[in-house]
Amino acid sequence: MDPAYRWSPRLATVDDAADVAGLLDDFNSEFDTPTPGRAVLADRLRALLARDATFAIVAGTPAEAVALVTLRTNVWYSGDVALLDEMYVAPELRGRGIGSAIMQQLISISTERRVELIEINVDEGDVDAQRFYERHGFSSTEAGSTERALYYSREISSGLEP
Amino acid sequence: MDPAYRWSPRLATVDDAADVAGLLDDFNSEFDTPTPGRAVLADRLRALLARDATFAIVAGTPAEAVALVTLRTNVWYSGDVALLDEMYVAPELRGRGIGSAIMQQLISISTERRVELIEINVDEGDVDAQRFYERHGFSSTEAGSTERALYYSREISSGLEP
Repeated sequence: MDPAYRWSPRLATVDDAADVAGLLDDFNSEFDTPTPGRAVLADRLRALLARDATFAIVAGTPAEAVALVTLRTNVWYSGDVALLDEMYVAPELRGRGIGSAIMQQLISISTERRVELIEINVDEGDVDAQRFYERHGFSSTEAGSTERALYYSREISSGLEP
Repeated sequence: MDPAYRWSPRLATVDDAADVAGLLDDFNSEFDTPTPGRAVLADRLRALLARDATFAIVAGTPAEAVALVTLRTNVWYSGDVALLDEMYVAPELRGRGIGSAIMQQLISISTERRVELIEINVDEGDVDAQRFYERHGFSSTEAGSTERALYYSREISSGLEP
């Protein structure tokens, strides 16, 4: 198979749920973050990918890179706001432009779906990720401001139980 | 009316849409942020508050303080994730604990609705807001880490047109 074709990003279907679950589980293991495990993630992804509010863009069959996106409404926009929940490329495939191809696909799909804003939370020390997103038009400050926004959160109960 | 009763936070209904729209419009005017205007915001709020994925907690009748919340799904949690989109107390009512009462109500409603995580984006220089959210259990770093997360965004098209 032609390598360029092989890594062309595509919209994931419910059939990709198990592979995407594996990637997300690898992702969290790579960064020492807790994960509920592949089986739980695959079950959730089968449910989420069947609905309109979640979509994923994957590269490879089986998927070896993924962007997972959740849509929501927001009072400031007539269209939806998209949150890029996760973006992961398998380690052995990095540096080939697969992440950039996925981002271009994300922006194109978002435009088709009348999304008006795409949001991402990025660790403050992850300068590589920040450069990557800035290259794709993202900013940590609003137009005309130099003030960055911080992401705060509070867990209400343990979120890692099935 | 008893002042404590008067400012007891309550879940907003569709009938509060116009008042909440006025507060959000005032909020953006106070901070020199563009706003589509009260009429557009009121129309959107009437639609959003009628659905399950958006709720608002208000204090006062008419509402003079508001927290606007959007729920979404997330692969890492079996329950929903709540995003506190906006939190505003009319200037003449600040310093009375109304914001804290609203936050307590938000956490209580979130618990009832099986929300597992509440998220907020806060400007880096807004130390007062950061202290307020930290007092209510929010953090800009994950447990065991000192690394903060930054909020990045990219607009796909003008979001302020009706």
